[in-house]
Amino acid sequence: MPIVNIRAAVAADVPLILQLIRGLAAYERAPQEVIISEEQLLQDGFGDRPLYECLIGEVDGQPVGMALFFPIYSTWKGASIHLEDLFVMPSARGLGVGKALLKQVAAIARERSCARLQWDVLDWNQPAIDFYHSLGAKFLDEWRIMRLTGEALTTLATGVVHAG
Amino acid sequence: MPIVNIRAAVAADVPLILQLIRGLAAYERAPQEVIISEEQLLQDGFGDRPLYECLIGEVDGQPVGMALFFPIYSTWKGASIHLEDLFVMPSARGLGVGKALLKQVAAIARERSCARLQWDVLDWNQPAIDFYHSLGAKFLDEWRIMRLTGEALTTLATGVVHAG
Repeated sequence: MPIVNIRAAVAADVPLILQLIRGLAAYERAPQEVIISEEQLLQDGFGDRPLYECLIGEVDGQPVGMALFFPIYSTWKGASIHLEDLFVMPSARGLGVGKALLKQVAAIARERSCARLQWDVLDWNQPAIDFYHSLGAKFLDEWRIMRLTGEALTTLATGVVHAG
Repeated sequence: MPIVNIRAAVAADVPLILQLIRGLAAYERAPQEVIISEEQLLQDGFGDRPLYECLIGEVDGQPVGMALFFPIYSTWKGASIHLEDLFVMPSARGLGVGKALLKQVAAIARERSCARLQWDVLDWNQPAIDFYHSLGAKFLDEWRIMRLTGEALTTLATGVVHAG
């Protein structure tokens, strides 16, 4: 039986992390959206004030997946964790790597007294939704995500504010 | 004309911040969900490694609202900001405080080279949705939020993992 192992990512994993980010983006039908570089990932994740943390999932010593997450904050419940990416290479599916990664993130959330572990899922990604539901995760049915980016963000940041 | 001013929150604002959190939770029809304490907010926001940042909106020198936010990370675009709470007391609406708060968060996002400013909105909160749309914010139509909490989180964190 293949041996699944979960370990913390180190700086030398950055090329692998970017490969997995690209693999997930392709699965999510948005490969062109990945503009992040290895240099940026290294700086953002492995400097003095990391913006994210990452776990690597291995099968028989070979890296095949990752969970990338960071702290968030609930003004109702306090410290929480957001899981940004959970991905296992297609060739290594069905061995429990994804669940082992998520379990480790859940354990970290508990260690840090986090009330919530949450993430976003594509509404058409039924295999993922079924998997998450099987673990007891729930949709936040009433909530929707909004985003300000590009020109609209710049305009708001730099424009004159009128009352109303 | 009333003078609107935005300033960074300080530790002495914690009672006000909790009052505004409760005001927003009541508006969101979930006042019983707020279990956070002043002590926790103080520790989490004003220690060595703050889990959130907060801006206070004032009208004629009186605090009437806040924007509470923290850094998040996009594996596609890099550093970003999540706006957790934006709230203005009902008595101070219509003076542009909410927009001034959001503008300041947007300016901070730009200063920090963030690609995205995002937040969650209740699907029935049409006045907020209209306001956000007027600023150029867009819904992430395909994405839904999932959460693991309470017993399900503990079970995943501490249980035995089976493959598959």
